[in-house]
Amino acid sequence: MVDKRKAVVLLSGGLDSATCLAIARAQGFESHALTFQYGQRHRAEIAAARKIAGIYAAAGHDFFDIDLAQFGGSALTGDCDVPMDRSEADIASGIPVTYVPARNTVFLAIALARAETLGATDIFIGVNALDYSGYPDCRPEYIAAFQTMANLATKSGSEGAGLVLHAPLQEMTKAEIIRKGVSLAVDYSLTMSCYDPVPGAGSETFAHCGHCDACQLRKKGFAEAGIDDPTVYSERS
Amino acid sequence: MVDKRKAVVLLSGGLDSATCLAIARAQGFESHALTFQYGQRHRAEIAAARKIAGIYAAAGHDFFDIDLAQFGGSALTGDCDVPMDRSEADIASGIPVTYVPARNTVFLAIALARAETLGATDIFIGVNALDYSGYPDCRPEYIAAFQTMANLATKSGSEGAGLVLHAPLQEMTKAEIIRKGVSLAVDYSLTMSCYDPVPGAGSETFAHCGHCDACQLRKKGFAEAGIDDPTVYSERS
Repeated sequence: MVDKRKAVVLLSGGLDSATCLAIARAQGFESHALTFQYGQRHRAEIAAARKIAGIYAAAGHDFFDIDLAQFGGSALTGDCDVPMDRSEADIASGIPVTYVPARNTVFLAIALARAETLGATDIFIGVNALDYSGYPDCRPEYIAAFQTMANLATKSGSEGAGLVLHAPLQEMTKAEIIRKGVSLAVDYSLTMSCYDPVPGAGSETFAHCGHCDACQLRKKGFAEAGIDDPTVYSERS
Repeated sequence: MVDKRKAVVLLSGGLDSATCLAIARAQGFESHALTFQYGQRHRAEIAAARKIAGIYAAAGHDFFDIDLAQFGGSALTGDCDVPMDRSEADIASGIPVTYVPARNTVFLAIALARAETLGATDIFIGVNALDYSGYPDCRPEYIAAFQTMANLATKSGSEGAGLVLHAPLQEMTKAEIIRKGVSLAVDYSLTMSCYDPVPGAGSETFAHCGHCDACQLRKKGFAEAGIDDPTVYSERS
């Protein structure tokens, strides 16, 4: 029996990263999920990540604490109250208010450290260039540059084994991601996209607000995919 | 009056990073030091970093906690007892036992986040390709690849301001670094290079062991520079 190739999969608990984990599994990787706890508002995502990793049989699941909030600079980790209800035009217009400085670079750097200690040659990240065109660190040229740098950075890359950075959702619309995930039996009711989730009855139960950028993109994705949206939205929405 | 350009300077408390901070200051940057607390054995370095940043008038000093030890994989952060006394031939032969997976990538990624929140366009790192040829993430091609990636990753890089990653010690021998530092009035008695420091009388007082790879390189550097070594070595050595 040949050992499965190992992959580190960044798992936020959102719709995209859950799909990414399902894709890594479908490609035959032994998947090791990595979730960051970085003082973000939506701890609901971490509860979702835990459920998803359990159900989709990740071979391991690391939770990594990192306090990016100490540097300030973003609505997602800060305490400031920026408006979360923005029009679709605003969303498309540029870099979002929820941008976290160098976030994907920090997360991928730590994924690289994890990959090297695991002996993994592959990293999966669920970035998406179309819906989130405003984040510079979601673009294909960024992903390619990170892979080049990573192969110069590490023992395995330097010795020829090589590291592959997979961003399978990169060119997909939200609707295409949802169709792909449904074809791989992803249960999207377990995922959490919302920037402002509403606590429910249980300690790890949250509803989506229905209003923020992420909820708007999520609703639109299900509508365009022609798939029933299993998301629980708050009564407020 | 023109505002000084801001730079983030990685400051470990060792000889190289102290020199790097002095170089950034000499080049006219408003320097913001960044020190990582990553579960490494040599907390003596952190005490040294605090003194150095104070004396060399860093405009700010952040201490960033990151638990790289949770992934294992290195003598510097692990609990295993690898031999620290190695011959010069062993040191030169390849990737050292003290290699921390993806360490510089993780540190530079966080420095990038700090730079972006500060509005800094420059990052200084005291890597050195000659004495530490075994570390893949100290090579000039790695530094260049990180800069390319960083400029694709961030708002400022994407919008044209551009980020410059300085590695001024890159091509210097330890002796050349020491001569440069002395010309900039760096007090090397404050710096800490040792992998296995020996606690002294005060809570923040440590002697160098005199035996480990880092101490050997340090001693050799002062000898080759023809400069009196102000380092306090333990009586064991």
